[in-house]
Amino acid sequence: MANGNGNEKEITIYDIAKRLKISPATVSRALQDHPRISAKTKKKIFDLADEVGYRRNHFAGNLRAQKTQTIGVIVPRLNSHFMSSVIAGIELTVNEHGYSLLISQSSESVLKEADSAEAMFNSRVDGLMASLAYDTSTLDHFDKFFRKKTPVIFFDRVMPNKNATSILIDNYRAAYDATKHLIEQGCKKILHITAPQMQNVYRDRLAGYKSALEEAKLKFREDHVIITNLSQEAGYEQAARILKMKSLPDGIFVANDSCAIGCMMGLMEKGIRIPEQVAFVGFNNDPVSTVIDPKLTTIAYSGFEMGEVAGRLLVNHLNGTLPINNTTTIVLRSDLIVRQSSMKNQG
Amino acid sequence: MANGNGNEKEITIYDIAKRLKISPATVSRALQDHPRISAKTKKKIFDLADEVGYRRNHFAGNLRAQKTQTIGVIVPRLNSHFMSSVIAGIELTVNEHGYSLLISQSSESVLKEADSAEAMFNSRVDGLMASLAYDTSTLDHFDKFFRKKTPVIFFDRVMPNKNATSILIDNYRAAYDATKHLIEQGCKKILHITAPQMQNVYRDRLAGYKSALEEAKLKFREDHVIITNLSQEAGYEQAARILKMKSLPDGIFVANDSCAIGCMMGLMEKGIRIPEQVAFVGFNNDPVSTVIDPKLTTIAYSGFEMGEVAGRLLVNHLNGTLPINNTTTIVLRSDLIVRQSSMKNQG
Repeated sequence: MANGNGNEKEITIYDIAKRLKISPATVSRALQDHPRISAKTKKKIFDLADEVGYRRNHFAGNLRAQKTQTIGVIVPRLNSHFMSSVIAGIELTVNEHGYSLLISQSSESVLKEADSAEAMFNSRVDGLMASLAYDTSTLDHFDKFFRKKTPVIFFDRVMPNKNATSILIDNYRAAYDATKHLIEQGCKKILHITAPQMQNVYRDRLAGYKSALEEAKLKFREDHVIITNLSQEAGYEQAARILKMKSLPDGIFVANDSCAIGCMMGLMEKGIRIPEQVAFVGFNNDPVSTVIDPKLTTIAYSGFEMGEVAGRLLVNHLNGTLPINNTTTIVLRSDLIVRQSSMKNQG
Repeated sequence: MANGNGNEKEITIYDIAKRLKISPATVSRALQDHPRISAKTKKKIFDLADEVGYRRNHFAGNLRAQKTQTIGVIVPRLNSHFMSSVIAGIELTVNEHGYSLLISQSSESVLKEADSAEAMFNSRVDGLMASLAYDTSTLDHFDKFFRKKTPVIFFDRVMPNKNATSILIDNYRAAYDATKHLIEQGCKKILHITAPQMQNVYRDRLAGYKSALEEAKLKFREDHVIITNLSQEAGYEQAARILKMKSLPDGIFVANDSCAIGCMMGLMEKGIRIPEQVAFVGFNNDPVSTVIDPKLTTIAYSGFEMGEVAGRLLVNHLNGTLPINNTTTIVLRSDLIVRQSSMKNQG
């Protein structure tokens, strides 16, 4: 067939950009005859495109004609390794197709999230990705995107909605594995430090923790669940609170690594031995989890991969090759990584 | 005088927002009679504004009439504590005045930086802040902002330009202090691990390092300067290279903390004692610098404060209260924080 790809890799604007040492966005704009690109640059790009046999998707080209080639991303906070990895994954994927990212943070406030959505809408982004703030309980502020049929993808912290696709991990299962691991190490009094319970990720982690306790016939106690903002400082402050408990816990499952590390540092400063007295499991596999001594047992899931999947989904939709409307939820893999902080049995 | 402020704190839209539990951006838009704000919300805001005696700056109001209430920020990478602190500082300051941020990362590439600038320009941001990529050597891609008289502030990684204001620390002095400290601890063979030398921050740090060596009559050697991308992985890889040197260095000054920590971990894994055999000084006072054992000596400078200063400068300019055109450079404080990683004398 004339247009069969066979084993030949299809030429993308990214290949052209690389060869000419210019950005994919410039190539994309030139191919759309964008007025900001000089005639000279356009000629160079058209010549090479002809030479290497670049074949533009005409359907996508038409769809794109009125587009800004930007994609909006709203995240709760930028100061986490996980979020910057997701953004890196999105960026790498969408850049290859000539899209730039505009990013905004909600600082865990639904009001700021609505402001960000507004700013993104006014910037006429071609697509939107968002991970929700601690206190977001409705998606009304995304309605204008839904009405305009701008594709929206929620990732990690998501909320079911017929107009959007969600990408997440099985938080219930991951938390169950983490807690079960502590139980297998002999822990009987296990605390869970987590965030406010509006968001799926924290609700599901609490449910997984409960379910592992139940299975082992350990009693679930409300006062063993500590709600914080999950910062390193919060973890450090909780250590002081934990030291005042009548009897120390022998295991702590924390919903992220930085908070776990703050708590470990606070306990170790007071002479508590980890894992011998208190075993720890975190969440995220943040690089800092291998800097602390003892190294932190944690749940690994790739933010970069989550970003790549989200990016590819959105680009395919925008290019008209794979509409996302049929896909409502994509669940990615996560794994328990056992390190020294929880190895009570060999401690 | 009728409009004197005296000791009374002026009522801002932020105060109104807080009282009504809505966002400052919504208050700002309502006061500008923005069509997206409902009549009901506008009434609530106007009523309270009257009640508390809110006085709008009419000059600023006029200037603002055609504005988007968004400010663009372009950073090299989002995955650093320093950059997320700067953004938090900017955000807190500009939010109080009803501006939202649109953020973009250049991934250390001038081509992507130009794309980001283009996306920001097309989003009609009211002002722009940027910290430059490793390979940025001209500011041509910001010309359209200069021509349009959109205020531009460069921070941390800056380049002199008559159209923009720069905010930075005295990198020369900080690096001189760091190196001198290593010399005072008895180090004689001091390596410097840094980034490509296009940017002021790394050039100035190298100059400070050289100057401290010179003062102490220690010979500067080109092969004692190692150029990397300053990631934790790069530091870890350099450790292997350092272990192959004929004689080990006795001190290493690294231009950021994560790279210093990667290098420390690589050396310690091979049994090298820190600081006894090799003393370390990093740069930034990243939280991870206190997680590593031994804790890392470093240069502290507040990204949050840098962001606040930048934000305030821009807002004052946009409000017409203090034009930035007269200010070309603002230099902020930095301090050497001595911790265990460099305490050779007491080691």
